[in-house]
Amino acid sequence: MLSVVQSASTRKLLEDAFLSSFHLASDIEHHLSGALRETLERPGSMIRADLALRTGRTYGLPEGSAEKLAIAIEYFHTASLVFDDLPCMDNASHRRGAPCVHHLFGEGAAILAALALINRAYALLWKAVAGFPVGLQSACLDYVEQNLGVAGLLNGQSQDINYSKLTADSRVPQQIALGKTVSLIRLALVLPAMLGGAPPKEIHLLKRLAVSWGLSYQIVDDLKDILHTAEQGGKTTARDADLDRPNLALTIGIHESFRKVDRLMRISDRIISKLSQRQPSFGFLNGIREQFDKELSTLS
Amino acid sequence: MLSVVQSASTRKLLEDAFLSSFHLASDIEHHLSGALRETLERPGSMIRADLALRTGRTYGLPEGSAEKLAIAIEYFHTASLVFDDLPCMDNASHRRGAPCVHHLFGEGAAILAALALINRAYALLWKAVAGFPVGLQSACLDYVEQNLGVAGLLNGQSQDINYSKLTADSRVPQQIALGKTVSLIRLALVLPAMLGGAPPKEIHLLKRLAVSWGLSYQIVDDLKDILHTAEQGGKTTARDADLDRPNLALTIGIHESFRKVDRLMRISDRIISKLSQRQPSFGFLNGIREQFDKELSTLS
Repeated sequence: MLSVVQSASTRKLLEDAFLSSFHLASDIEHHLSGALRETLERPGSMIRADLALRTGRTYGLPEGSAEKLAIAIEYFHTASLVFDDLPCMDNASHRRGAPCVHHLFGEGAAILAALALINRAYALLWKAVAGFPVGLQSACLDYVEQNLGVAGLLNGQSQDINYSKLTADSRVPQQIALGKTVSLIRLALVLPAMLGGAPPKEIHLLKRLAVSWGLSYQIVDDLKDILHTAEQGGKTTARDADLDRPNLALTIGIHESFRKVDRLMRISDRIISKLSQRQPSFGFLNGIREQFDKELSTLS
Repeated sequence: MLSVVQSASTRKLLEDAFLSSFHLASDIEHHLSGALRETLERPGSMIRADLALRTGRTYGLPEGSAEKLAIAIEYFHTASLVFDDLPCMDNASHRRGAPCVHHLFGEGAAILAALALINRAYALLWKAVAGFPVGLQSACLDYVEQNLGVAGLLNGQSQDINYSKLTADSRVPQQIALGKTVSLIRLALVLPAMLGGAPPKEIHLLKRLAVSWGLSYQIVDDLKDILHTAEQGGKTTARDADLDRPNLALTIGIHESFRKVDRLMRISDRIISKLSQRQPSFGFLNGIREQFDKELSTLS
C-alpha cells in the first residue's frame, strides 16, 4: 500500500529479482503456475524488500546476500497477503488493482502458490546466510522464526481474524498490529543489520523504528479502509467494520489517528537522525518517512 | 495410515518430540493454540519421522540432528494433511479418528496452525544441519526445497485437486503420486543419509526405495478409499470417485492394484537386501515392509 521513494534502478532491480527468483518450470500444474505468475508479476510497493536491501548495503553485506534477504522477506509478505485475502480470513475480492488470485485460480491454487513462495523464501534465506559464522546464522534464523511464527506474524493474524471473539482485554488493535504488521517490517530492518554485524545500539534503534513505522503503517491502512474507495486503494476497503476487525481509526477516531501517526513520525525522525549520525547511508530512511506524509496528505 | 513396527521406546521418543518440539506459549490466540494442540496431540503413524530417525542413526548422525530432521519432516507432512482436508481441497470431515481441525477451530485457524508447523519445521531443519560443512548444508537444503516445492509435493497436490481439469495425458495417478506421496517419504529416507555422508550408491538405493514404497503407499491408500468404511480408516473415505481425484485402484482396478503393490514390494525387498548388505542396521526396513503385508491382508 505504501509506495516507496526508490531510485528507478533499485526499483527495477527489486522487481526483476522478485520475478526471476522464482523459477516457473513448464511442468507445473497450470492453476498453480497461473496463481504464481499472477502474483510474481504484481510486486506491490516492495517497501520491505527495499528496506532490507538498503539496510544490507549499509552494513556492507555482499549484494547477493542482501538481495536474497530482500526477496525472501517480500515473498513471505506476499504469501501472507494471499492467505489474508481468502474467504476464511478477509474474504477480499481485489488486491493490487486486480482480482485476488483465489478468484482467478481457485482457493486451492492460491494456498499452494502461497506455500510455494514460502518454500522459496526459506531457500533464499539460507542461501543468504550460508557461509556466515554458525552462531550468527543461528541468531538470524531464530529471529526469522520468532517474527514469522506464533510469537509474531501468525499470532497477529490469528488475533485479527478472531477479533470479535477475543476477550475485552485482548481487543487492543495496537497490540495486534505489533504481530500482524510490525513483524515483517522489523525483519526487513533488523535481519540484514544482524547479518551485517551491526552494533547492538543500532539494532535496538532499528527495532524501535520498525515499531514506530509498523504502527503508523497500520494506522494509515486502517484510515484508508475507512476513507478510501476500493478504486483509490486498489484493494477491497470498508472491511474492518463489516467483519469486526481491529481498526485503530475506528477505535480511537479519525482525528486522534492522525495525531497518533504524527507523534509516531516525530519519534521515527529522532531515530533516523541517530541512525544517520552513526551510518550516513541511513539517510535513505528519510525518503520513506516523507512518503508517509504524502500518504497522509491524500487522506486528510 | 500405515502404522510402523517401532520399538515402544522409539515410538514414545518420537511422540514426545512431536509434541515438545513446538512450544505453545500461553499468549497464543486461543483458536490458533487450540488447532495446534489438537494437531500435536494426534501424531498419526509417524512413519516418516521413524524412517528419518533410524536412517540418521544408521549413518551415525548425532541423535539431536536425526531427531530434528525426523520431527521437521513429520511437521511438514502434518501441515500438508491440514491443508489437504480443507473444503477447497479434499473437504474432509475426519482425520486420525477425530474431526478435522478446521471443523473444530475454523479454516483460518487451521491454515495458521499449518503455517506455524511449517515455520517450526524449517527452524528444526536448519538447527539439524547447523555446524555441518557449508556445501553439505546447501545440498541438503536444496533437496528439501526441491521435494517440498513446485518440483515436488506442491505440484503433486495441485495435480491432485485439479485432476478433473487436467489434460488427458496428464491424468496419470502414478505420476501424480510421485509428487504428492513419494516426495516426503524420499525426504525422510534421503535427507538423513545425505547429511550422514552416505555413499552415492546407497543414496540411489534409498531414492528407489522411496519411489517403490511411496507408490505402494498411495495404492494402499487408494484401495482403502474404495474398500474401507470411514470408521475403519479413521478418516473420510470414498472421496476420490466423488471428487474426481486420481485413484490408481479406480484407474487400473482392484485386482491389478493388489498385483502392482506385490510387484513393488518385490522390488523393495531387493533394494532392502542390498542396503542391508552394505549397512546391517538397515534391517529395520524389513519391519516396515512387513507392515505393508498386514495392511494388504486387512484389505483383501
